[in-house]
Amino acid sequence: MELKKIGNVDFVSGGVCAAKGFKANGIQCGLVHAGATLTSKKNDLALIVADNECSAAAVYTTNKVKGAPILVTKEHIADGKARAVIVNSVNANTCNPDGYEKATKMCQLAAAELGLDEKDIIVASTGVIGQVLPIEPIANGMKSLAEGLTYDGNKRALEAIMTTDTQQKEIAVEFEMGGKKCTMGAMLKGSGMIHPNMATTLTFITTDAAISPEMLQRALSDNVKVTLNRASVDGDTSTNDMVCVMASGSAGNKLVDSENEDFGIFSNALYNIMLNLARMMARDGEGATKLVECAVTGAKDEKTAEIVAKSVICSSLFKSMIFGEDANAGRIYCAVGYSDADFDISKVDIAMASKGGKIVLGKQGCVVAFDEDEAKKVLAEDEIQILVDLGEGSGAAVAWGCDLTYDYVKINGDYRS
Amino acid sequence: MELKKIGNVDFVSGGVCAAKGFKANGIQCGLVHAGATLTSKKNDLALIVADNECSAAAVYTTNKVKGAPILVTKEHIADGKARAVIVNSVNANTCNPDGYEKATKMCQLAAAELGLDEKDIIVASTGVIGQVLPIEPIANGMKSLAEGLTYDGNKRALEAIMTTDTQQKEIAVEFEMGGKKCTMGAMLKGSGMIHPNMATTLTFITTDAAISPEMLQRALSDNVKVTLNRASVDGDTSTNDMVCVMASGSAGNKLVDSENEDFGIFSNALYNIMLNLARMMARDGEGATKLVECAVTGAKDEKTAEIVAKSVICSSLFKSMIFGEDANAGRIYCAVGYSDADFDISKVDIAMASKGGKIVLGKQGCVVAFDEDEAKKVLAEDEIQILVDLGEGSGAAVAWGCDLTYDYVKINGDYRS
Repeated sequence: MELKKIGNVDFVSGGVCAAKGFKANGIQCGLVHAGATLTSKKNDLALIVADNECSAAAVYTTNKVKGAPILVTKEHIADGKARAVIVNSVNANTCNPDGYEKATKMCQLAAAELGLDEKDIIVASTGVIGQVLPIEPIANGMKSLAEGLTYDGNKRALEAIMTTDTQQKEIAVEFEMGGKKCTMGAMLKGSGMIHPNMATTLTFITTDAAISPEMLQRALSDNVKVTLNRASVDGDTSTNDMVCVMASGSAGNKLVDSENEDFGIFSNALYNIMLNLARMMARDGEGATKLVECAVTGAKDEKTAEIVAKSVICSSLFKSMIFGEDANAGRIYCAVGYSDADFDISKVDIAMASKGGKIVLGKQGCVVAFDEDEAKKVLAEDEIQILVDLGEGSGAAVAWGCDLTYDYVKINGDYRS
Repeated sequence: MELKKIGNVDFVSGGVCAAKGFKANGIQCGLVHAGATLTSKKNDLALIVADNECSAAAVYTTNKVKGAPILVTKEHIADGKARAVIVNSVNANTCNPDGYEKATKMCQLAAAELGLDEKDIIVASTGVIGQVLPIEPIANGMKSLAEGLTYDGNKRALEAIMTTDTQQKEIAVEFEMGGKKCTMGAMLKGSGMIHPNMATTLTFITTDAAISPEMLQRALSDNVKVTLNRASVDGDTSTNDMVCVMASGSAGNKLVDSENEDFGIFSNALYNIMLNLARMMARDGEGATKLVECAVTGAKDEKTAEIVAKSVICSSLFKSMIFGEDANAGRIYCAVGYSDADFDISKVDIAMASKGGKIVLGKQGCVVAFDEDEAKKVLAEDEIQILVDLGEGSGAAVAWGCDLTYDYVKINGDYRS
């Protein structure tokens, strides 16, 4: 997937270890869930540790069912500070009577091994909901997990948070603030149970920029709205979603503590990170073969544009048609039409574009005649853009999704995926 | 599928021709859509005609994109009266610049052949959106369509409205009002693009009961809310949905013109018809192998119960798990949790039932240990009930859906289904 670059940043390698002073590691501690056997060699437990105390901020799922780790993390970063992240896959530690105790225990184990305060640890879990988390494999693995921490351990950590993900999703950028080079990196897991209603998925972001917890939270909350919250794979809002960011300040820039010019630069760097993560996540949606971007323009306001864009990328019929590479323009109008927003359908134009070309599908609410062969060429590509012009104002928004395929059903029909 | 019987009605055969004085017919007039060839022998054009003028009422889609036939029908039954229905499949006559003229023309052609006023004709279309409707096949077929009308033509008419439907969905009941035997029958098409936000699908109901247009509309609107509007196949709200009912009065009962006891009897008959049609529709959802019913109890009010029930049956992850016969209880809690309703998740119990047994899956927001073999037995059946108790009040609601299967994707990935 091609990365989108907005403004003055440079893409670099290194993921969550790209920024100065962040170590990471991932190991296979041996977590399994009931009914399954340990057959894969995939890592399942990860640590990210900063050399010094960081400003910390997070955004969480809006699901009423919240994973126990989310409750613990909220408490731990209430002071705006953190030093490390402990995270496991396989088991979500959610809907369990002892979830809170287990999530706390994970922090205690990591803190003891690292010589840190447990309140400085962020904890997260992802995997099957509703099975008691066995703490022994985590306790037994903690020593080797901590001992293996390195400044280039990002891939080992990333592997440990993946579940049905097929692609490793990490990214990093360099940018300059007040003459100082800053770096920001991130890793993300997320493939199914992805719907824009909060953070969406587990995302860990690290940066060596100096920024206050308040400004960090603002930058994160602002960017979540226009990136991860506009990506959907299946309309299911997870119970364990969290995106968190740690800013160590070791880049030596002047502390960003107000909405000044530097804040704009920082926020743009974060936008580049989160925009591309959102696109990677949609592209790697469970079973997906194509990334779909719906760009709505001409809305009376941004909210209207967002509602319409999400309605299109969430439509099962639209998603199936993208998989089948069939230019069924009526289904796009149908999904635009049932979106809960205010506009005049008789002013709406729709088009479709990709590296294979661009084609107008509808004008003023009516499907127009188009060349089926040209349409096939557009749809044969693996990144498809749907363009919807509401013809009323200057509001615009983009949302990201993917096609609906046999493999989505297969992945989710299987035992406790 | 077993029919659900509520109160004092008897199921009879005959569909839309069960009530006294209703003729029907269906023919293959030869409608095709661009890119397709006429290979099936399926009927594509139907008429239902009453022997005398009827009270008429209808409920339509809430999609902003409305099929042209809906606009014409709204005008024609504004006086609360109708005599006949003309309806075609294959082409939805929607998102076309000349849709209104073509829908009007269909009424004119039918009226001319039947010797009726065109304003007494209800018109409907279903099929591919955004292709100009060829009127010639309809004009050419009208004479034989009208000549073939019989008092037992319900199956021929029913075949003509089916698209991706695999099962013929019709039903009829007898009931007594004021000592008079009344009959009510219906046919329905609907398999994909089904979502509860209005009428859902094309449904035609006929009855020989005498009832005023106002009371007929009230009974229809009330019942739509708790039947068709609580069924979902894929979350897509169609552009052409309509449910209409014609009441001829030839049963000779005292005219129902207020909310009296007879209105209750009439409304209950209509409930039996629409409840079972909703269940049939969900069971025959595109690609579906199972009917899923989610019954929510213990809500603080009915609306809360409805929101939660719909959230469960609309979840792609839940639907895939039903297809895979995997008792992934966490996904049910997840879908309950992200529903936009007010309740305390820590009070929520969930269970699952079918002819294969009943099994408790969760108590007070936590998944409980259960016997996987017992769960398999429950899920092996083709009608599954999910029971959610919110533990707060006496509000209750039921919603109907189906599983998500490979075939849903196949059907909708194919060219212009």
